[in-house]
Amino acid sequence: MNQNKNVAVVGATGAVGVEMLETLAKRNFPVKSLRLLASSRSAGKPMTYRGETIKVEELTKDSFKGIDIALFSAGASRSREFAQFAVDAGAVVVDNSSAFRMDPSVPLIVPEVNPEDIKKHHGVIANPNCTTIIMLVAIKPLYDLSPIKRIVVSTYQSASGAGAKGMEELEQQTAAVLAGQPAVPQFFPHPYAFNLFSHNTAIQANGYNEEELKMVYETRKIMHDDAIRVCPTCVRVPVLRSHSEAITIEQVRKVSVEEARAALAKAPGVKIVDDREKNLFPMPCNSNGQYDVLVGRIREDLSCDNGLALFVCGDQLLKGAALNAVQIAELL
Amino acid sequence: MNQNKNVAVVGATGAVGVEMLETLAKRNFPVKSLRLLASSRSAGKPMTYRGETIKVEELTKDSFKGIDIALFSAGASRSREFAQFAVDAGAVVVDNSSAFRMDPSVPLIVPEVNPEDIKKHHGVIANPNCTTIIMLVAIKPLYDLSPIKRIVVSTYQSASGAGAKGMEELEQQTAAVLAGQPAVPQFFPHPYAFNLFSHNTAIQANGYNEEELKMVYETRKIMHDDAIRVCPTCVRVPVLRSHSEAITIEQVRKVSVEEARAALAKAPGVKIVDDREKNLFPMPCNSNGQYDVLVGRIREDLSCDNGLALFVCGDQLLKGAALNAVQIAELL
Repeated sequence: MNQNKNVAVVGATGAVGVEMLETLAKRNFPVKSLRLLASSRSAGKPMTYRGETIKVEELTKDSFKGIDIALFSAGASRSREFAQFAVDAGAVVVDNSSAFRMDPSVPLIVPEVNPEDIKKHHGVIANPNCTTIIMLVAIKPLYDLSPIKRIVVSTYQSASGAGAKGMEELEQQTAAVLAGQPAVPQFFPHPYAFNLFSHNTAIQANGYNEEELKMVYETRKIMHDDAIRVCPTCVRVPVLRSHSEAITIEQVRKVSVEEARAALAKAPGVKIVDDREKNLFPMPCNSNGQYDVLVGRIREDLSCDNGLALFVCGDQLLKGAALNAVQIAELL
Repeated sequence: MNQNKNVAVVGATGAVGVEMLETLAKRNFPVKSLRLLASSRSAGKPMTYRGETIKVEELTKDSFKGIDIALFSAGASRSREFAQFAVDAGAVVVDNSSAFRMDPSVPLIVPEVNPEDIKKHHGVIANPNCTTIIMLVAIKPLYDLSPIKRIVVSTYQSASGAGAKGMEELEQQTAAVLAGQPAVPQFFPHPYAFNLFSHNTAIQANGYNEEELKMVYETRKIMHDDAIRVCPTCVRVPVLRSHSEAITIEQVRKVSVEEARAALAKAPGVKIVDDREKNLFPMPCNSNGQYDVLVGRIREDLSCDNGLALFVCGDQLLKGAALNAVQIAELL
């Protein structure tokens, strides 16, 4: 039986789409054929996959004939509009948008955390938000030692979370400021060069923005634990690509730093970077392009008897998006 | 009686020293004479105070004759070496370094928080660490509503905390990276352009760096409450001047968001920036050059019954250093 798959990438020209092609190739995903889909604006654009040139086609409801796996990363509204066409055509959709994540019939998967949930799919599998994925890869091995009751997390999110345009704006605006010109926001709502701002998603009635609430609700769904309480603060910092997170967790029993380190050392998808003597801890510059989530600053939470504190860093485009989606496709 | 003071600024040519001169002038501090002191390297350098040119003199043990108030901002080892000479000459020292902060005989003052402690001085008054000052100005009004038992704080610290050289390195390295050259760390231990790193102070046995432990111990001393437990994560982000902090507090009783906002609205040194509709919250670009600490994202801590969360931003060179020192001098 031929195990090779006909794969479609929706949003192929975006920052995540480009990384999806890279990741499929690097991980030797068994691709029989590859169809690259995007808006009409990008139709005809040539892209390269394993040395072969493939032209981008316009995404339509008829794009999915013969497709086995469709990787969607073109925003929630595109996913809502087109995912069902892919499912109807017999494909399994791995969706990187927020469209279906909280749908009870859609599994939300971090392969290192809840791979078994994939069996419950009805054609659509959701890829969690980047900040959630990176956090859960780091804390799941600790949850397995003792359940986590409470999480306080502050994020240091990169421009790439807003796609290629976000990264361009950061670079261009910073160059302007260094040349003595003003920082003029165009894509983001606030100045970004040498500045930071609260995550630019809408604020809900409880004062949390949508990015933060994703961390609250996706964590519970993926961990199958509605008792976990999460207090997130999501902040955009002038970093190009990797997200960092300062995490404190409170557990049912006290887990020692040594025990936590031992569990993290053998956890899949985790690389410990925790050299106190050299002051070397997770940094975006060392996380960019890496598959693993870097975990360091592993220490007791001085403010809580059963608490631990961590600092983690993950490539937002890879583990936060493209890699996790391809890993889900591999599970299929 | 003549209330005017003979003032010396030690470390006058540094980033904080320059802001001290600015702040003395802007706040019409009653200066009778001003002596600018620095290392022999800077001796003879002309600086401007209220349009008048003053030459920097070399700091020696004989520098303080006739001085009433000596503002020190030249690092802890200079303070340890020279502060006593100033006291012996009859001056009151306001020291911006960490040298005397935890000395039980030295008051550690944030004028908005514990001005009354100044009476206990024996010649030296310490200015707290920038991150501590900015945090306490924001949370003291909330402590007054109900004692704070626990603080979890993640910082987003600017280059200015490391002085003028830190700011220069960030600008020059960023320009190099934008020109396609590598980020070569010289002053800081890690790449800084479009990157972030754990605060570059030594890590202690418990895994916390010195900057973090300042927040732990200075908070207790200033608040006169040894029961406050603080879990800080101090991170250097590629921002030039203002420090930001994501703070969650747990209090003895539940304080509502409305009650907290009302207390902050009338608190000295605080400016509320909390426009949920416009997604406008404290940002370094709006805090730079400001005396007030900007406070926003005021919301319930979703992870704790009696908890509140905040995001604050303060000019590290002003409220975090020079302004606080001049305010202490004003209390004298």
